[in-house]
Amino acid sequence: MPKNTKKPKYVYLFGNKKADGDGKMKELLGGKGANLAEMTRIGLPVPPGFTITTEVCTHYYANKRKYPKELWPKVKEGVVHMEKILGKKFGDKNKPLLVSVRSGARESMPGMMDTVLNLGLNETTINGLIKASGNERFAWDSYRRFIQMYGDIVMGVQKRPDEDHEPFEEVMEGLKSEMFPGEHHVLDTRLDTNALKELVKRFKALIKERTGHPFPDDPWDQLTGSIGAVFGSWMNDRAIVYRRKYNIPSEWGTAVNVQAMVFGNTGENSGSGVAFTRDPATGEKVFYGEFLTNAQGEDVVAGVRTPRPVIELKDVMPKAHRELEDVRNKLEKHFRDVQDFEFTIENEELFMLQTRNGKRTALAAVRFAVEMAKEKLITWEEAIQRVPANQLDQLLAPVFDRKAIKSARCIAKGLAAGPGAATGKIYLNADRAAAAAEKGEKVLLVRVETSPEDLRGMIAAVGILTARGGVSSHAALVARQMGKVCVSGASDLRIDYVKRTVTIDGEVYAEGDFMSIDGTVGEVYAGKIETAPSEIIQVLVNKTMEPSESATYQNFKKLMDWCKKATKMGVRTNADSPKQAATAVAFGAVGIGLCRTEHMFFEGDRIDAMREMILSEDIDTRKKALNKLLPYQRDDFAGIFRALNGLPATIRFLDPPLHEFLPQEDKQIKELANVIGVPAEKIKNRVNELHEVNPMLGHRGCRLGIVYPEISEMQSRAIFEAAAKVQKEGTKVRPEIMIPLVGFPAEFQLQSEIVRRVAAEVAKEEGVKFNFLVGTMIEIPRATLVADEIARDAQFFSFGTNDLTQTTLGMSRDDSGSFLRHYQELEILPQNPFASIDQSGVGKLIQTAVELGRSTRPDIKLGICGEHGGDPDSVKFCHKVGLSYVSCSPYRVPTARLAAAQSALAEQRAAAGAKTKSTKTAKKKSTPKSNKR
Amino acid sequence: MPKNTKKPKYVYLFGNKKADGDGKMKELLGGKGANLAEMTRIGLPVPPGFTITTEVCTHYYANKRKYPKELWPKVKEGVVHMEKILGKKFGDKNKPLLVSVRSGARESMPGMMDTVLNLGLNETTINGLIKASGNERFAWDSYRRFIQMYGDIVMGVQKRPDEDHEPFEEVMEGLKSEMFPGEHHVLDTRLDTNALKELVKRFKALIKERTGHPFPDDPWDQLTGSIGAVFGSWMNDRAIVYRRKYNIPSEWGTAVNVQAMVFGNTGENSGSGVAFTRDPATGEKVFYGEFLTNAQGEDVVAGVRTPRPVIELKDVMPKAHRELEDVRNKLEKHFRDVQDFEFTIENEELFMLQTRNGKRTALAAVRFAVEMAKEKLITWEEAIQRVPANQLDQLLAPVFDRKAIKSARCIAKGLAAGPGAATGKIYLNADRAAAAAEKGEKVLLVRVETSPEDLRGMIAAVGILTARGGVSSHAALVARQMGKVCVSGASDLRIDYVKRTVTIDGEVYAEGDFMSIDGTVGEVYAGKIETAPSEIIQVLVNKTMEPSESATYQNFKKLMDWCKKATKMGVRTNADSPKQAATAVAFGAVGIGLCRTEHMFFEGDRIDAMREMILSEDIDTRKKALNKLLPYQRDDFAGIFRALNGLPATIRFLDPPLHEFLPQEDKQIKELANVIGVPAEKIKNRVNELHEVNPMLGHRGCRLGIVYPEISEMQSRAIFEAAAKVQKEGTKVRPEIMIPLVGFPAEFQLQSEIVRRVAAEVAKEEGVKFNFLVGTMIEIPRATLVADEIARDAQFFSFGTNDLTQTTLGMSRDDSGSFLRHYQELEILPQNPFASIDQSGVGKLIQTAVELGRSTRPDIKLGICGEHGGDPDSVKFCHKVGLSYVSCSPYRVPTARLAAAQSALAEQRAAAGAKTKSTKTAKKKSTPKSNKR
Repeated sequence: MPKNTKKPKYVYLFGNKKADGDGKMKELLGGKGANLAEMTRIGLPVPPGFTITTEVCTHYYANKRKYPKELWPKVKEGVVHMEKILGKKFGDKNKPLLVSVRSGARESMPGMMDTVLNLGLNETTINGLIKASGNERFAWDSYRRFIQMYGDIVMGVQKRPDEDHEPFEEVMEGLKSEMFPGEHHVLDTRLDTNALKELVKRFKALIKERTGHPFPDDPWDQLTGSIGAVFGSWMNDRAIVYRRKYNIPSEWGTAVNVQAMVFGNTGENSGSGVAFTRDPATGEKVFYGEFLTNAQGEDVVAGVRTPRPVIELKDVMPKAHRELEDVRNKLEKHFRDVQDFEFTIENEELFMLQTRNGKRTALAAVRFAVEMAKEKLITWEEAIQRVPANQLDQLLAPVFDRKAIKSARCIAKGLAAGPGAATGKIYLNADRAAAAAEKGEKVLLVRVETSPEDLRGMIAAVGILTARGGVSSHAALVARQMGKVCVSGASDLRIDYVKRTVTIDGEVYAEGDFMSIDGTVGEVYAGKIETAPSEIIQVLVNKTMEPSESATYQNFKKLMDWCKKATKMGVRTNADSPKQAATAVAFGAVGIGLCRTEHMFFEGDRIDAMREMILSEDIDTRKKALNKLLPYQRDDFAGIFRALNGLPATIRFLDPPLHEFLPQEDKQIKELANVIGVPAEKIKNRVNELHEVNPMLGHRGCRLGIVYPEISEMQSRAIFEAAAKVQKEGTKVRPEIMIPLVGFPAEFQLQSEIVRRVAAEVAKEEGVKFNFLVGTMIEIPRATLVADEIARDAQFFSFGTNDLTQTTLGMSRDDSGSFLRHYQELEILPQNPFASIDQSGVGKLIQTAVELGRSTRPDIKLGICGEHGGDPDSVKFCHKVGLSYVSCSPYRVPTARLAAAQSALAEQRAAAGAKTKSTKTAKKKSTPKSNKR
Repeated sequence: MPKNTKKPKYVYLFGNKKADGDGKMKELLGGKGANLAEMTRIGLPVPPGFTITTEVCTHYYANKRKYPKELWPKVKEGVVHMEKILGKKFGDKNKPLLVSVRSGARESMPGMMDTVLNLGLNETTINGLIKASGNERFAWDSYRRFIQMYGDIVMGVQKRPDEDHEPFEEVMEGLKSEMFPGEHHVLDTRLDTNALKELVKRFKALIKERTGHPFPDDPWDQLTGSIGAVFGSWMNDRAIVYRRKYNIPSEWGTAVNVQAMVFGNTGENSGSGVAFTRDPATGEKVFYGEFLTNAQGEDVVAGVRTPRPVIELKDVMPKAHRELEDVRNKLEKHFRDVQDFEFTIENEELFMLQTRNGKRTALAAVRFAVEMAKEKLITWEEAIQRVPANQLDQLLAPVFDRKAIKSARCIAKGLAAGPGAATGKIYLNADRAAAAAEKGEKVLLVRVETSPEDLRGMIAAVGILTARGGVSSHAALVARQMGKVCVSGASDLRIDYVKRTVTIDGEVYAEGDFMSIDGTVGEVYAGKIETAPSEIIQVLVNKTMEPSESATYQNFKKLMDWCKKATKMGVRTNADSPKQAATAVAFGAVGIGLCRTEHMFFEGDRIDAMREMILSEDIDTRKKALNKLLPYQRDDFAGIFRALNGLPATIRFLDPPLHEFLPQEDKQIKELANVIGVPAEKIKNRVNELHEVNPMLGHRGCRLGIVYPEISEMQSRAIFEAAAKVQKEGTKVRPEIMIPLVGFPAEFQLQSEIVRRVAAEVAKEEGVKFNFLVGTMIEIPRATLVADEIARDAQFFSFGTNDLTQTTLGMSRDDSGSFLRHYQELEILPQNPFASIDQSGVGKLIQTAVELGRSTRPDIKLGICGEHGGDPDSVKFCHKVGLSYVSCSPYRVPTARLAAAQSALAEQRAAAGAKTKSTKTAKKKSTPKSNKR
């Protein structure tokens, strides 16, 4: 890296309609900092302040937690800047400047990092606050909150494992029981000024006792301590878990925003709120949000009191409401996207504390995009980019069955915080919820309110139910982002964490009991309720709803139509049955990319014929057993060909090792022995003989067809006989026969010879002609290295990225759970390589194979059929290397289509020299810092 | 391929001191054909004839077994050529030309393909033969032999599975019992002319009955039929098995030699023999071979009668003997190598039928090479090339223990046909021998005589013992080539195939009983005899013999000294103990390339501490258990460092998955529970928890050190504490610490940080400095693809080609047995990829890694430590890609050194523009036909 000749600017000021930074500088200033600058610039009422850049964070971690020495003088300048604008002074006893210190990363990480409010208060400056507010109790309450927050976050006075309660809470409870002996659940509001003064004393003593250090009185010490705590929180456990889930690289770092305090809690003509320019749950174009009077912003988000809808602000503070409506319009026009913003009203005066693009459900994302394009606020291309591809399948998630819901018993109501329907066993603690989910249970996480500590449980649950908190509470925010069903603020719930029960209306529900929630309407039901398909499924797949009945479907369709316009990379589907094929085609799949024939062998008595085949000791017996399987396979293929109605179908030959088809337990072996009339002992011997130490690397794939060519022959015959039959019915058939696990060119030659020979035989027998291809699945590294030779005979490649990942990384998907978690925590791996293609490893081999394959056969058809085919990042990668299609499970088809369209548009933009793409790419690649600007 | 403008020449003539071809044209004419031409050219007495090229064979198989149409006119010309020289005529009743038709591939494949003799005989031409030989019985015997041979080979009249005897034998036995009723075992010689005439009739009838076709009387039909049969035999099962064992590609094809017959069986002044210019078993410079009077060449090789030493020819036919001695000298001078040749004496006149480089034991190969270099017949560089590297370890094979042999009971004597000592259970049939060997038994194959059908059994056996046949019998020839111990012609053995017994001197040995054979002296012993190390081992390793006592050692040393002169690529060893290290160093290893630390954990109570570690539930308990292991490891490493005396030692961190260290059976689990005081249930749970579906791709290698860094820490500490100790003793120590299974650069970084930190700690504690490297094992494909990034921190790469082969090919070594055999038979794979590096797959990744590694760190140390390190072809590959060293098991060190020297010399020659290398390379690469000339 060349040495910077110019010193980096570590502190960016904003205030009074001017700002050093702007909204585009998110990488350097974080999302919050950049948008505070931008709002200041466009004239919105933002309290002045400054942002310490993410570079300081990076410097801090790269240099053993040391700051650049130029930092502190600049921080001082920033404070002076606020003092000048507000006519206040930091640490002054008359007109003290109080500030907040907040984190602000490039991408919002709600609740993940630490915040300190009311900073600057001490025994002297409190007088100034009393004077300014005219409210002594408020001032002392602010002070004791500040000490509590600072003590917890900066000085680390927290609950120890051997304690039952937070130490500050413990002290407060102690005081309450002295003041109100015999009473339980005394409200904080009953503590008067003197009590609060006493509390301040006791809190300070607690801090001294636990840390050995006094609580710092000097505001500058407070400020440096808080800035350090915010930077430190970038590496706390919660933040690490969150980043892993959302693939945020740790090198990004966080910025720190220091901003003059405004108080929403000075009385009833003050308040705080959070709002969205449109409804982030349904996507409807209504002003959406909530506020609390006499409260600070954190109170709204924390969900301690249930707030009022923002629309009611009109009645309470009409002027502020008018201003807010104006802000709403300005924001959306300026940012050209739905904004999620925070405001505080101090004595009827509106202040903007934050704005950002609003998190949204997939439902809302699609509606926002389609409607904003109709409103000409954005183009249709932008609309496509606006919908996060990996959330699109939420639209296909089930809802409650309409009939079932009628007979269900609604036991409570809450807020519709995350749309969709979920049913599961209730768990009252994140760890237990996660453990139950690991066992395969469907879990509803039920909490009084959630906090970042609950994240693991929320990830594991199908739905989240809270007793407190609004639609922008932690629970709601996180649930929507994850696409989880959520009902928040269901205040009738009485939750007992010790007994592990939920009591509603006198009725007791224990952990493990079933409940169901509808996050679209905010209702809670007792017991299990059958779920029903989403509207889109009903329209497209089940045809139980007319297109005109569903606005959701219409928005979805519009989006998909635009996608079609944007790209030509096809999306196929992985389907093993006519029904799956039909579903995928309804979603826009242009064929089958992977039909796994082995799944067909497990039904009914087929498995017996299959087992007979495996147990055969000579070729004649084996052929006899295969002949029993032939008609089944033929019928299956015919069904699939009909469902595809002329679209191509990639059919893979038998792939798994034969032992997967044999019973392993003694009892089952005996049963099989009776059914097929072979001694149990013999079956056992064969089971032992077929046992493999590493079945993944064993006798499977084309290795079966090489040793038992009669299997490939039977499968070829089934395919072509089915094709002949369906062709005679007048339907076109385009089989693409795929030889799996090829590593040596001769393997492919030998197998494709069989296919072509049988095709010719059947064509002659049936008097028809076939339009077919023979190709291979590229799924072991060797195949990528000799792809030029394989392509001499193979007409297509389909990348089997599941196995290619396992072999390239030497990592079994089944066994990697034990260490992959550590790997992600240590950031050895950027993402789970089984979910998203390992581009710098597996990706290189894919590129090699593409290049070599094309060198021999320029028009070779190239596709991908691993699980990665439905992962947006992987789809983008496939687009980049120039594949003809991706293939994924039917429900992921819309996601893949959207991702494909987004890639095509991104490429167009890049080609046009636009630079809007850089952020997206940088995110995935953890680019080194020098590339960030 | 561009069209040939010139038509290929399909037939090459030789005779009368002139020849179309010469000795260099082995690819086109086969070994036999080329040398017949060469011998003709240098004036040796060769019966005239012609060679049909290998191109015809290739054409034949490439065109559905059709011949090029230009062939037959040329064959006719060839016959005319013989007729002219000999004044005979093909099919003539007075002076008929009779011919032999023999196969002849590029490399000799003894006994693998078919031969037809006496061709041209029929009811008319037999009169000419009677006239010429004056021996009617001889003529009729020749005729019935011809019919029998032709009927068997060309017309396929062979034993059917439901028959007990060969059909021709059956007919002959029938005739004998009619003529000599009541007698058993009537000798063929008792059949007189009339009987033979009758036999000819019956043989013809048999052929008509079995094939529906009459026996062809037209000599031209006989000739075309025989040529076809020889080409057809290229693809028979025996030939395929043989080619697989010796890696001969099927595309090479065979040539066909048609040559005028000479008769060694016309009476007592005729004979046939086989001889070597020097002793091919011991390497001694003596005329070596054997002959039979009144016999055709096939009789000598088949071992039906035991022949007499060639030296005795002097007494029988002194003139022929003188000529033969002359031929011996001419041959060796001309071919500059030991020749193995066949001759026939017809009425005292000597004819040469074949010569080729003599197969030899490793012992002889070394002696030939060293002595011929001393004789200035060849250069020292040629001497190096003359010893097949993959046989060199035969010199290190054990011999019988001197003491044990004294008390052993010699029960029979035979010929010293394959040197060395072998002890094992006797088996009388190839299949049973092979089956027993597969179960892990040491097997001696005992046969009356062997034939190509016994090949599988011979491969499986440690030694071969026959009752009949000389030192050039099939058994002896094949055994020497394979490096098997062999005693042939032990005529006291009475073998009963039905009862499966061997009777010697009235004593009965049943199948499964132990016997021992000494192939160096030709002795057979009852029971098991302890084997003792070879002389080289005794001199170098055990120091129980003085160098001057062993000529074998001295030749070996000379060769190794030349090797040292020829190359600079080092050979290291894979060793886990001081003893192994010392042995390898004695063989010339320049360090340890792989020390597997896990092997150290299995001894004594270490395994208990290891298990305690694995069963630990928290880091403190785990550290406590690791501390118990530390002193063991430290002592082991100290011992190894001392044995190496300053040479470098690559030490690999713990590699196998932890479950490999835990007991699996209930009983063992209970025992362990008692020993370490942990409930059995808990151990069982942990065993289940650690179970892996594909352990090869599981939680192992550096993945252990990542999840349990304390293990890497302990191992680092053991290494450096041991190093400090040994350094203080005054011995240099050069540890090279190797992190296994790295796939991601960060894995390496994290682990090497531990190593470097601990090294610094120990250096400080002990007040010493360390000279060490930290590097990685490249053994999964991903590592090769990001080798540039890994090389930023890694100071060396060692290619772990075992695992790299498994992952690159997606093929488990443990499970591939079930299909790899088919793969080799179908020639999908040229060689077993676990024995010899898969150069076009795995090799490409190695090259990628070498290039990428060097791009970041030009001086990176590169080595290989898989099993391939001792395989000559793989060593040559390593030389080619520029590795610094190979590492192999101690006993393979000389082999690897020789292979390394050969590669260096080959490279020099190639650089000097010489072209002698082409044959060798072509062999491995199965070059397409167009490259062959």
